Amino acid sequence: MPRTRLSRLREYQVEERASLDALLDQARIAHIGLVSDGHPVVIPTAVARDGDALLVHGSTGSRWMRLVATGVPACVEVTSVDGIIVARSAFESSFRYRSAVLFGRFERLQGERVAGALDVLVDKLIPGRRGEVRASTRAELNKTMVLSMPIATWSLKVSDGWPEDDPDDVAGPSWAGVVPLAEHAGTPVPAPDLAAGALLPRSVLSLTEGPG
Amino acid sequence: MPRTRLSRLREYQVEERASLDALLDQARIAHIGLVSDGHPVVIPTAVARDGDALLVHGSTGSRWMRLVATGVPACVEVTSVDGIIVARSAFESSFRYRSAVLFGRFERLQGERVAGALDVLVDKLIPGRRGEVRASTRAELNKTMVLSMPIATWSLKVSDGWPEDDPDDVAGPSWAGVVPLAEHAGTPVPAPDLAAGALLPRSVLSLTEGPG
Repeated sequence: MPRTRLSRLREYQVEERASLDALLDQARIAHIGLVSDGHPVVIPTAVARDGDALLVHGSTGSRWMRLVATGVPACVEVTSVDGIIVARSAFESSFRYRSAVLFGRFERLQGERVAGALDVLVDKLIPGRRGEVRASTRAELNKTMVLSMPIATWSLKVSDGWPEDDPDDVAGPSWAGVVPLAEHAGTPVPAPDLAAGALLPRSVLSLTEGPG
Repeated sequence: MPRTRLSRLREYQVEERASLDALLDQARIAHIGLVSDGHPVVIPTAVARDGDALLVHGSTGSRWMRLVATGVPACVEVTSVDGIIVARSAFESSFRYRSAVLFGRFERLQGERVAGALDVLVDKLIPGRRGEVRASTRAELNKTMVLSMPIATWSLKVSDGWPEDDPDDVAGPSWAGVVPLAEHAGTPVPAPDLAAGALLPRSVLSLTEGPG
């Protein structure tokens, strides 16, 4: 298992589980790292946290899902780029970010746990949506694979500071600061085949009224 | 080398190099996949395209940079989540996204190429910034490693459609559509140690006036 203690920039390491959970709960996607025939492969996929587990899902026909389901070692990386640190020098310019790395193995959920996990994933994608959609059919559940990995071995790196320019640069006339970055949800666009009179659901309204 | 042809969802595969370049040029970070002692590791890092090469940089003390610099097989993944596809059913709900995967090996740039590559990276982070900052010092260049990977073996997957619900669901009363997602650059915040009278540079102004 790779190390989870930072060898450099140790002051960026955050140990609080609550900070990890906040990032995992905000992130829409994770990047899953695998070794396939000796080669590294990285897959982006929707992710949700269910207590002390990370959930991902996909088609039962997906090659990477089938590989992960065999319990091979996996790495899950979740990043949020929160701002641009504009330093006076190129060298000190950087990002504000939060980056979580988790190591472990996924297992495939079976039986009743599949529908419950899909509810968690749907509500992560669109909070409140789970109470608005019909239940998944048996055929839909049969086509879906849900994998779970325990949140056990992880590290969290947080950069939330200011430019750290050399004194000579600080004394100069250059501007320095931070440009905050955030995701913004725009105006919902109706599907081309939308029935006349269909109302925007509360969950979608909340998405676009949120802090994003 | 892993395959770059999609085995599923083939209609999502985009072959145009211009579409790949547009994604690479927009993305602030890439996720680098590596194999370290047999385990998969994923590292987020700033990325810039320089013609037919991808550039990343970091400290000469960085363990992952030193591993990548040895020329081990690497996977570079770049994703943009462009919207939420709100289907009538949970099963058909999804993201609009663009996802690029590149395979190859990085090599470390040497000599004059380092400063040139850093200019490309700085201008990627903040377009126009390169002309506003002082040149990097010899000491700064000595602390920086720049790695380059050819853009040669890649695949691009683009989901930009609409909900594809079953006819029974389409006939029902539920809303369906897309919520666009985009990154938004907020108002620049001056550094605590900013000298009085320092003016916001043109590059930073452009960032916040852009289409983001």
